[in-house]
Amino acid sequence: MPENKVDKKLEVIQIEENVMQENDQIACEVRDIFQKHGIYAVNLISSPGSGKTTLLVETLTSLKELIPCAVIEGDQQTSNDAQRIAATGVPVVQVNTLQSCHLNALQIKKSLDHLPIDKIRLLFIENVGNLVCPASMDLGENEKIVLMSVTEGEDKPAKYPLAFLKSQLLILTKIDLLPHLRFDKELCKKYARQINSRLEIIETCSYSKEGISAWIDYLLLKAGPRP
Amino acid sequence: MPENKVDKKLEVIQIEENVMQENDQIACEVRDIFQKHGIYAVNLISSPGSGKTTLLVETLTSLKELIPCAVIEGDQQTSNDAQRIAATGVPVVQVNTLQSCHLNALQIKKSLDHLPIDKIRLLFIENVGNLVCPASMDLGENEKIVLMSVTEGEDKPAKYPLAFLKSQLLILTKIDLLPHLRFDKELCKKYARQINSRLEIIETCSYSKEGISAWIDYLLLKAGPRP
Repeated sequence: MPENKVDKKLEVIQIEENVMQENDQIACEVRDIFQKHGIYAVNLISSPGSGKTTLLVETLTSLKELIPCAVIEGDQQTSNDAQRIAATGVPVVQVNTLQSCHLNALQIKKSLDHLPIDKIRLLFIENVGNLVCPASMDLGENEKIVLMSVTEGEDKPAKYPLAFLKSQLLILTKIDLLPHLRFDKELCKKYARQINSRLEIIETCSYSKEGISAWIDYLLLKAGPRP
Repeated sequence: MPENKVDKKLEVIQIEENVMQENDQIACEVRDIFQKHGIYAVNLISSPGSGKTTLLVETLTSLKELIPCAVIEGDQQTSNDAQRIAATGVPVVQVNTLQSCHLNALQIKKSLDHLPIDKIRLLFIENVGNLVCPASMDLGENEKIVLMSVTEGEDKPAKYPLAFLKSQLLILTKIDLLPHLRFDKELCKKYARQINSRLEIIETCSYSKEGISAWIDYLLLKAGPRP
């Protein structure tokens, strides 16, 4: 019986590796599509309710006249977020992942069929709200960006390290709430940089627009002006 | 090739079913242990940073003189939360799930070896911060309880329905922040009860202690006084 269990475990690990390999292969195809069409793609990762969509709506409103954008929205259920994005006039595809807690590369590849990829320069992929699994999944993106609301507590980088390790930028959201919280911002940044010493950090509030111009500058520097 | 792909997919589904069946079998064993020892177990599920540990510390401080408690802490990394719980004097076991985004029944079964199960009447299982996968996983608990901070937005029940469907109670946390937020509490409750019409709801603030006595009454009613 113990031998059987080991066999089963090995089999499960093998299948998981196959699934990841298949995803990575499709992610490479997606990356090729992005490169061919001159698209810069960012994969936004955070807990549910950190303010990804609100920030995105604010970002698109300022950015859409400067660079052609599009959005792929990942949610377990509903098209609430896609509707909020669509109201900005930017092309958007909603992917409902149902039982799954993250987007995968195949969903991105299929979504591209529904977007005007010849015209897009900057693609936002809003992942399912989850700090764990999306960090392990290559979607073919140019970079992962982790968002964290200041209401979530300083220790999130230490408790969910992979998302912070794999990202190039941390966006601290909802900083207007700082006066009402027991949140040590410098300690949070210290934890984040212990995980990833090269992590850039931008502080934002989507309502007061604090930090939005720094975030837009960051995106324009990465995605460049339209050729 | 397409046939191969289908085979592979079926194989993955079969393995996933086996993993779930194996978990459910161990969950039954765990449930038997709880019943035999008169332990009432609650499985706390939420996004990262919703305030599970802070609420738990506050709860244990009030509750530990009334009923013998213990805690199993699930985190991807660190023992920060277990240390905070241990400071209350209540027995605690930390489980680090590493790559996994949820606790499983085997981890609970093994944790029980490190707890004085003959003396415990009420066991809190604090799951990994994740609103998706923990909802599908039976840990042998008597009930799942979903927590949600009012900073997370009204639509979380609609976007992550399973956690709200599988729970008997929703705890709305951080209600002291309501005056500073654009959060429609009644709309949130409406969404939650559209998913689960029998869901009980308690509003709490761990710092001001608002709602803590209602939550403690709820637990004592479920777990009963010591015989």
